[in-house]
Amino acid sequence: MYKIKEIAEALDIEPWRIRGAIERGTIKFRDDFSPPYFVFTRALGKIEAGTAIFLGEKIEVIRGFPKIKRAFFLSNAVKNHFEDKVAVEEKMNGYNVRVFSIKKKLVAITRGGYVCPYTTNKIRKNKKISRFLKENNKVLCGEVVGLENPYAIHCYEEAPKFGYFVFDIREKGSNMPMSIKEKNSLLEEYVIEKVRLFGIYSKEEVVEKTFEILKKLEEENREGVVLKDPEMKLEPLKYTPSKTNTSDLRHAFRFPFDFGRDFFFSRIIREGFQAVELEEDEEELKERAKRIGESILFPMVETIRRVRNKEVVTDDYQIRVESMEEIKTLMRYLQRQGVTCILGDVMQENKNLVATLKRIRPNSNDKIKSILEKGVTSE
Amino acid sequence: MYKIKEIAEALDIEPWRIRGAIERGTIKFRDDFSPPYFVFTRALGKIEAGTAIFLGEKIEVIRGFPKIKRAFFLSNAVKNHFEDKVAVEEKMNGYNVRVFSIKKKLVAITRGGYVCPYTTNKIRKNKKISRFLKENNKVLCGEVVGLENPYAIHCYEEAPKFGYFVFDIREKGSNMPMSIKEKNSLLEEYVIEKVRLFGIYSKEEVVEKTFEILKKLEEENREGVVLKDPEMKLEPLKYTPSKTNTSDLRHAFRFPFDFGRDFFFSRIIREGFQAVELEEDEEELKERAKRIGESILFPMVETIRRVRNKEVVTDDYQIRVESMEEIKTLMRYLQRQGVTCILGDVMQENKNLVATLKRIRPNSNDKIKSILEKGVTSE
Repeated sequence: MYKIKEIAEALDIEPWRIRGAIERGTIKFRDDFSPPYFVFTRALGKIEAGTAIFLGEKIEVIRGFPKIKRAFFLSNAVKNHFEDKVAVEEKMNGYNVRVFSIKKKLVAITRGGYVCPYTTNKIRKNKKISRFLKENNKVLCGEVVGLENPYAIHCYEEAPKFGYFVFDIREKGSNMPMSIKEKNSLLEEYVIEKVRLFGIYSKEEVVEKTFEILKKLEEENREGVVLKDPEMKLEPLKYTPSKTNTSDLRHAFRFPFDFGRDFFFSRIIREGFQAVELEEDEEELKERAKRIGESILFPMVETIRRVRNKEVVTDDYQIRVESMEEIKTLMRYLQRQGVTCILGDVMQENKNLVATLKRIRPNSNDKIKSILEKGVTSE
Repeated sequence: MYKIKEIAEALDIEPWRIRGAIERGTIKFRDDFSPPYFVFTRALGKIEAGTAIFLGEKIEVIRGFPKIKRAFFLSNAVKNHFEDKVAVEEKMNGYNVRVFSIKKKLVAITRGGYVCPYTTNKIRKNKKISRFLKENNKVLCGEVVGLENPYAIHCYEEAPKFGYFVFDIREKGSNMPMSIKEKNSLLEEYVIEKVRLFGIYSKEEVVEKTFEILKKLEEENREGVVLKDPEMKLEPLKYTPSKTNTSDLRHAFRFPFDFGRDFFFSRIIREGFQAVELEEDEEELKERAKRIGESILFPMVETIRRVRNKEVVTDDYQIRVESMEEIKTLMRYLQRQGVTCILGDVMQENKNLVATLKRIRPNSNDKIKSILEKGVTSE
C-alpha cells in the first residue's frame, strides 16, 4: 500500500526509513485532495521538511523549499558565503508558496507542504501561470502577498489584495534551481510577476549597496532582501531592516503566549548586531530602542486591556472567494492544520464574497485571563 | 554509609527515594566543609530545593528557602491570596542567605544550599548574630546586599559594602516561620538588622498603599516589596516596580546568550500587566516603552562592540577579605559551582585586601564572537 517502495526509490532513501517516519507521524498522509499525498513535516535525511509526494499513477515529488539562512552581521556573512558576484533580490512579506501541476491541474502548496485550497483556487485564475505550467514541468517558488489571504497581511501597491511573485524556478524531484538569468528570462517570456532584482554586484560592493537598498525599502515599509549567487550554486542569505524586525515583534506581542520565546529573542538580537554594524551613535540607538520598546509594550498592553474587557483577541484575516462553499472548505482545511478560526463578517462585493476569518490565539487569551484573575502565574 | 536511614527519618521520606536522588545526582554530597553535608539541588517530595543536611554526630536539616510567588496583577493577587491583614516588607536586592549554627559554628548557605566561604566569613564577624545563634537554635533567613560580594551588586546607603538584613526566622528541620511580630521583636532584642516593615494593612487598603510605597522605592532605586500574612500562615507574594524589571533586563542583556529566554520574557510580561493595572496613558506608556527598549538595546550593543574589539566581556564583582587564602578558597568554591572567574586587581586597604573577581559569561562571549565572524548563526 501507499507505494512506499516507489517513493523510496524516487527519493533514494531506504523504504524502512519512510515507513518509520509514517509510523512516528512525521510524514503525514492527506486524502482531502486528488491524488492523495504525503507531507514531510520534518526533514528526513537530505529530504527537506515541507516535501510533498503526490501518489498519482506516476509519483511526483515536490521538494520542500530550503530554509534560507539569515545574516546577522552582513559584511562578514557576505565575505564568508559568496565567491564572486552577488544578486540582490527583494524579499517580500507574505507566505511561501510552491506552484506546479499534477495530472495537468495547477496545485499550490504552502511552506509546510500542504495543498492550500484558497491559494490554489486563487492562482488557478492566473492564465499566465497556467500556461507556463502546461508548457514547463517545473516548480514555481514564490511569495503570496497582499491583504486577502488567511496567513500574512501586508499591502503592496503593486498587489494590494492578492499577488503572487516568483523568486525561484526549480526542478521537480531534484529541487535544482535555475540561475537568476534563466529564471528571469523565462518568467518574462510568460509575463509572470517576479520579485524585484535590484542588481548583481561584486562581493566588494554588495554590502554597501544592500544597506542603500534596505534604507529605501524600509522607508517604503517593505520587508528586506535575499542575496543570491547568480548561478544559484551557493546558499542564499536573507537580511531585513529594523522596521521589519520590530513590526514582527509588534505582531507577536499582540499574542505574547502564542509565539515562542525564541521568536522574540531572535528579533531582538538582530537589532543589536545591526546597530553595531551600522555604527550607530547615541541618537540613532535611542531611536532604535524606542522602536523596540514600543513594538513590545504597546501591542501587549492593548491585548491585556482587551482581555480584561472580556473581549476575545483574534488575528483577523480577509479572504475573497466566489462561494460560501469555498469559505467552508478553507475553514475545514485550517482547522485540520490546527488553526482555530471563527467566521466574522461575510459581505457580497460584485460577484465575490469578502469574508473575515478571526484566528483565535488560544494561549494568549487563556493565559492572560488567568493571570488577570489570579494575579499570579506559575511560570 | 552517609547515614541515609537517619536522614530519611529526619525528613520523613523513604530511604530509597534519597538513595535514588543521590544516584541521579540531584542530591549532591559536599565534603569541603566540616561536617560534610548533602544539598538538594531539586525539590524531593515536600523537601524544597536548596535544603542542606549536615552530617555531624547529630544530623541537622536546614530546609530550602521557599520560592516566593510573584504578583503579576497585584490587586487580584492580593484578593486571592490573603485573608485579613497584609504586612508589607521591603524586598532587598542582593542574594538570599540562611544563617544558623552547626556544632556551635556560624554557617551561611546561599539559596542553592551550599556553604559559601565568603559569606560565612563575613557574617561570622557580626557579634550580634553570633550571640543570637548561640542562644537560639534557629535559622535566620535574609538578604546580603552591598557592593562587596561575588553574586549581586546593589548599593544601599545603610549598607554600601556588605550588609545582612533578616526577613524570616525559621525553625531548623520544620522550616516553620515566626510571625512578623515575634520575629521583629526577637531581632530588635538582639539588635540584628532586618528588612523594613512598611506597615500592616487591611486587605482592602494594601494595594493602594503598596503602589504608594513602590513609587518611593522606585525613586530611591530600591527593589520592591514582599507581602506577607502577619501570622506567616499563608504564602507571601513579591512585587517589583518597573525600574527593577528593566534594570534586570539591562544586566541580562549585557550577556544575552547566558541568561535564559524565559528570564527576558518574564520581565517583559510583568511590564505589560503593570502598565494595565496602573491604567497608564499614552505618555506614561511611551516612557515605559523607552525604558524597556533602552534596557534591552544599550547593554547588548555595548557587549557586541566590546567583543568586536577583542575584549572579553565579564561581570565584575568586588570582595573584601583579610587574606589571599580567603580569595583562593572563594575562587575554588565558585569554580566548583560552575562559575568561571578570573582574578582582577587586588589592592591592600588598611588590613584588608580588596579584590575584583571577573566572572566570565562564556556563552555570550563565544556566540557573539562567532556571529560577528561568520555573519550568520544556526539558531
